[in-house]
Amino acid sequence: MPMVKINGFNMNYRLEGEGDKTLVILNGIMMSADSWAGLVPSFVRNGYRVLTLDFRDQGKSQPSPEAYKIGQHAEDLKALLELLEIKCCSLLGISYGGQVAMLFALKYPQLLESLILANTMARMSNHLKAIGAAWDEAAKLKDGKSFLRLAMPIIYSQCFYSRSYEWLQAREEALGGSLTSEWFEAFQRLSSSHGDYDLVEELEKIKLPTLIIASDQDAITPYEEQLLIHRKVKASSFVVIPESGHASCYEKPQEFILLVLGFLAALSNRHE
Amino acid sequence: MPMVKINGFNMNYRLEGEGDKTLVILNGIMMSADSWAGLVPSFVRNGYRVLTLDFRDQGKSQPSPEAYKIGQHAEDLKALLELLEIKCCSLLGISYGGQVAMLFALKYPQLLESLILANTMARMSNHLKAIGAAWDEAAKLKDGKSFLRLAMPIIYSQCFYSRSYEWLQAREEALGGSLTSEWFEAFQRLSSSHGDYDLVEELEKIKLPTLIIASDQDAITPYEEQLLIHRKVKASSFVVIPESGHASCYEKPQEFILLVLGFLAALSNRHE
Amino acid sequence: MPMVKINGFNMNYRLEGEGDKTLVILNGIMMSADSWAGLVPSFVRNGYRVLTLDFRDQGKSQPSPEAYKIGQHAEDLKALLELLEIKCCSLLGISYGGQVAMLFALKYPQLLESLILANTMARMSNHLKAIGAAWDEAAKLKDGKSFLRLAMPIIYSQCFYSRSYEWLQAREEALGGSLTSEWFEAFQRLSSSHGDYDLVEELEKIKLPTLIIASDQDAITPYEEQLLIHRKVKASSFVVIPESGHASCYEKPQEFILLVLGFLAALSNRHE
Amino acid sequence: MPMVKINGFNMNYRLEGEGDKTLVILNGIMMSADSWAGLVPSFVRNGYRVLTLDFRDQGKSQPSPEAYKIGQHAEDLKALLELLEIKCCSLLGISYGGQVAMLFALKYPQLLESLILANTMARMSNHLKAIGAAWDEAAKLKDGKSFLRLAMPIIYSQCFYSRSYEWLQAREEALGGSLTSEWFEAFQRLSSSHGDYDLVEELEKIKLPTLIIASDQDAITPYEEQLLIHRKVKASSFVVIPESGHASCYEKPQEFILLVLGFLAALSNRHE
Repeated sequence: MPMVKINGFNMNYRLEGEGDKTLVILNGIMMSADSWAGLVPSFVRNGYRVLTLDFRDQGKSQPSPEAYKIGQHAEDLKALLELLEIKCCSLLGISYGGQVAMLFALKYPQLLESLILANTMARMSNHLKAIGAAWDEAAKLKDGKSFLRLAMPIIYSQCFYSRSYEWLQAREEALGGSLTSEWFEAFQRLSSSHGDYDLVEELEKIKLPTLIIASDQDAITPYEEQLLIHRKVKASSFVVIPESGHASCYEKPQEFILLVLGFLAALSNRHE
Repeated sequence: MPMVKINGFNMNYRLEGEGDKTLVILNGIMMSADSWAGLVPSFVRNGYRVLTLDFRDQGKSQPSPEAYKIGQHAEDLKALLELLEIKCCSLLGISYGGQVAMLFALKYPQLLESLILANTMARMSNHLKAIGAAWDEAAKLKDGKSFLRLAMPIIYSQCFYSRSYEWLQAREEALGGSLTSEWFEAFQRLSSSHGDYDLVEELEKIKLPTLIIASDQDAITPYEEQLLIHRKVKASSFVVIPESGHASCYEKPQEFILLVLGFLAALSNRHE
Repeated sequence: MPMVKINGFNMNYRLEGEGDKTLVILNGIMMSADSWAGLVPSFVRNGYRVLTLDFRDQGKSQPSPEAYKIGQHAEDLKALLELLEIKCCSLLGISYGGQVAMLFALKYPQLLESLILANTMARMSNHLKAIGAAWDEAAKLKDGKSFLRLAMPIIYSQCFYSRSYEWLQAREEALGGSLTSEWFEAFQRLSSSHGDYDLVEELEKIKLPTLIIASDQDAITPYEEQLLIHRKVKASSFVVIPESGHASCYEKPQEFILLVLGFLAALSNRHE
Repeated sequence: MPMVKINGFNMNYRLEGEGDKTLVILNGIMMSADSWAGLVPSFVRNGYRVLTLDFRDQGKSQPSPEAYKIGQHAEDLKALLELLEIKCCSLLGISYGGQVAMLFALKYPQLLESLILANTMARMSNHLKAIGAAWDEAAKLKDGKSFLRLAMPIIYSQCFYSRSYEWLQAREEALGGSLTSEWFEAFQRLSSSHGDYDLVEELEKIKLPTLIIASDQDAITPYEEQLLIHRKVKASSFVVIPESGHASCYEKPQEFILLVLGFLAALSNRHE
């Protein structure tokens, strides 16, 4: 994966596929560009160019020397798109990445053709702050396996623990061993970046065609929060993935892929 | 629209688009090929050839001189596909049309690439029978406006009545005036055809890639019934359209279209 | 049952039990005082005096010679309570009866100790109006069995049709034979009385301890409408009966009874 | 509170009220007899004698010198009831306490008049085991505030965090400071006691009148698990508390109290 200097740090990204249309994907807080490895090929096979990337403090991107606000990622993305000469794209963000996507859509709508918001919230509720504080507490242990053991149950649904227990255990095993002291410090900076996030009053300004994806058993960003976004963003479609928790792209990849492909397909032929 | 002689009656169909891939669409009991006019262009623009049709006793197809079982429509469809030399297609059915689609998928799986089942049930519950009996009662009046006034409230959601009251009133007005005595007789034959429909024990034999669409406020074929199909059909994806009643293709056409397009897109590139 | 002259018509009521505390029960639009026969003994055994009654145009009360607004029933109830020298009571209303109860609570709060609102709405939605129009259309037939066949499927849940099909058929049989031409005329006056009902802006003025009962499969007055009342009425408790349709007192009498008894019990000892 | 020697350890209990009828309350895993202080007066005022208690390893009861199975608490309860000469009672258990209550009901039905099961499960799902493992991990820190910060977000709903943030912070503050090293060791023994709990196949043997309470946003013991119990226990009533998480007795005490009072009231007059 290529690395570029953006706003003073080395940013990791991957550009795959050959299409005219570009899909940019923004990670949830614990994810990285690699997390999408199982989904990107489906988008590429359907003719999209796909840009995945690590925010500062994520994956292979350089850690940030200091604290920042979540809006910084929108600026970093802006710079990356310029550098890659991407003048128009569809922007998909899940959870924390969805929050970045909403900020970007409000600030740089002219760079976007459409928006896909999965399992995200337009504000920080007390509950979401408490979840963040719990994860911070867990991160202090600087032990990958302990961290995952503590953080995972609220992320995944009971259904998924029934369906895919081995996948979950393998993930805990593999990921748990790889989390370094630097990762935890970076995680805490990410986590501190969106404490006062609140776009509820501004959402109506988003005029882009938007797809909103909710899960029926999302204990972190519940259905009501996505409904709120749907109510405010006029040109939005809204779909629910049943028997899924917060991380719908892991729990229900087949449904997640078809929603994204369907939205992009309907969109690309809308005005012809 | 062309008319062909099939199994002794004149069947109305319409074949639109130029693609290699064919999508065949089966109507709900009160619908006709014309009902899909708002959706077909989206499928055509995305490169699909689309076959819509009227079952015997629907739309412009010839009324049936006698009673029949719902399975007859599967035979009629088989004959039509032969006549049109369609050797492989994706089959979408909503409600009653979904029941025909499941029968077809069990009997002629070799003709299908995939299956899309929207707002349908694998059996007749007491409740569904009672709804059928209510509609039969309403049909006896042989008055279009009375019939629609009686039949519509259980079909559409409170949400849709809020969002689209004028559309609903216009539909009642337009459709109401057009329902003839023959239409009501045909409707009653359709309605009598699936009283003993029950595929619950056979569903597991469906091995086709399948998309199941439910609505959260479907008072006719509730979520639980679609979940039951999802549990039995291994290769199925399952998605819920929120704030929609039974007729999801009317209440939420944008979401309906994106689900179909996404499923077909994911499918067509699955094995490459 | 005794009959009294109230506001110019003969009103039928029944007063059962011996307690200090009085529970007054208001019927849904198709119900009558007799509809509560299965529930009243439980309230009486628990020490409540129970007043059931037929609104003008219901049950054994005299039909109204002319049209009226739903608020008239609140005046009739006021007069009946005076006549019976009931100075304070708890008021339970289901559906249409819940709408009367809210009107009464706003106008005569000094006569009430508490309020129980089951499966009701603080306004007429387009959907609820359309259901009313469907029932009016069915009432025009002036045939009991046809009327019930047409009206019942949206009232009861699929669950209830599975659990209690024989009960439902018996009800259709028994009730169907008893509905007279006068009943249908009376029904249409009742039905015309609440077309412009809307208390959404006034609900906040209700300060009484209130219990709100919703059903998870209520296709007539959906959960969201009861949630709206709960949000506006500060001193309200809110409970949902699962696997039940609109007529929760019939579908889930055991749960209905326990909710009412529990609310009254908690209340009567609250201030000691 | 009195302390008695039971099966070799000192057990803490409290018996309040004067009634003929006794209600016995079993705690969730992190709770103690004191947790019910806000609810017991309502039961006492309504004429019930109320027995609250601490399981071995809970509250003021003596820690256990060794590991045990959850069934041990049922034996301890049996011994306590004998000692107190309570020959018949209604048994209420929430979460872990509900699991003890089901075991007790299967083994000693002759001692019970009825059963109340709140937010509990008849088996250990993979998800519930993972939640237990997370809490164990958090307990290893032996720091009250860290423990609560880690454990609380999955227990309480987003709604409750909105409604009652100060209550939650106060609880975290008060409780956090009081958790000792012994508490954490005891907690881990409790947590280890039900790893192989599974009564699904035996539930049908419960013939007692039973009330099942679920919360709509319970991320620990979801609705489906309570529905499963309801399906198996014939004589059960089933009610859902909306806008509540797992700890319904804290999040919605008013509704919790009315459900318990109503169930007991309906019951006590059922056979007269």
